[in-house]
Amino acid sequence: MTDYYLDDFKPGDTFTTGSASISEREIVDFALAYDPQPFHTDPAAAKATIYGGLIASGFQTIAFGFRLIWDSGVLRAASMGSPGFDELRWLKPVRPGDTLHVEMEVKEVRVSQSKPDRGIMRAFYRYVNQSGEDVLSYTAMHLLRRRP
Amino acid sequence: MTDYYLDDFKPGDTFTTGSASISEREIVDFALAYDPQPFHTDPAAAKATIYGGLIASGFQTIAFGFRLIWDSGVLRAASMGSPGFDELRWLKPVRPGDTLHVEMEVKEVRVSQSKPDRGIMRAFYRYVNQSGEDVLSYTAMHLLRRRP
Repeated sequence: MTDYYLDDFKPGDTFTTGSASISEREIVDFALAYDPQPFHTDPAAAKATIYGGLIASGFQTIAFGFRLIWDSGVLRAASMGSPGFDELRWLKPVRPGDTLHVEMEVKEVRVSQSKPDRGIMRAFYRYVNQSGEDVLSYTAMHLLRRRP
Repeated sequence: MTDYYLDDFKPGDTFTTGSASISEREIVDFALAYDPQPFHTDPAAAKATIYGGLIASGFQTIAFGFRLIWDSGVLRAASMGSPGFDELRWLKPVRPGDTLHVEMEVKEVRVSQSKPDRGIMRAFYRYVNQSGEDVLSYTAMHLLRRRP
């Protein structure tokens, strides 16, 4: 697997992750711990909402896709965390059995002025379901090591 | 407990949640599932990073605080989900044993033009640790029911 460092990313570069499916059990377990709104925890109550059935917590969707990004290896060598995300948008519900993958596009790369061994890479992410619909998008800032 | 609807929020209103502590076990379990970066999963490896020890995944921190918001009841009657968050910033690491609470300030309230039974409330959130430091902030859009 290739190791990517800050120096290896250029605006316009794109990466696509593998895909994974989310189960009703995963959705309900996450929601009971962190986001117990009825449309995330109770399939019967969820039917009566605007969603027409159980949907994943948006917090879980972000994290579920990040696992795919991590497993793709693109951040593995260089990631030192993230200062923040911008324009996080939940575009479509994620339902039990949905299969997601993530598309990433590099937007900006800059070396830190004060700590020249690292820098910030900004990337735009889209999480895409099995029907090709975008379900979530955001721009992330990644603090990345430079190539040693 | 008071039920709040869209009509009950005005710009400048503030709410403070209860507090809760996060354990090393919770941090590691979440990270193994969703964000297995070494500084979230491995206390020994984390010592050698810029964080100097294990820290919570930022995805977990957002969700952990949302649980406090939900439990405060302020969104319970009216929440229909969220279209998105803006300017999400992880400001300080969250470490095992940290105790967080959340401060919310209403920024904007507007009724939907197309669906007059609901609308958007925008609020600024700060998650605060036991030392009074902000660890996370963001602006959320909430889709809320109007008072029936």
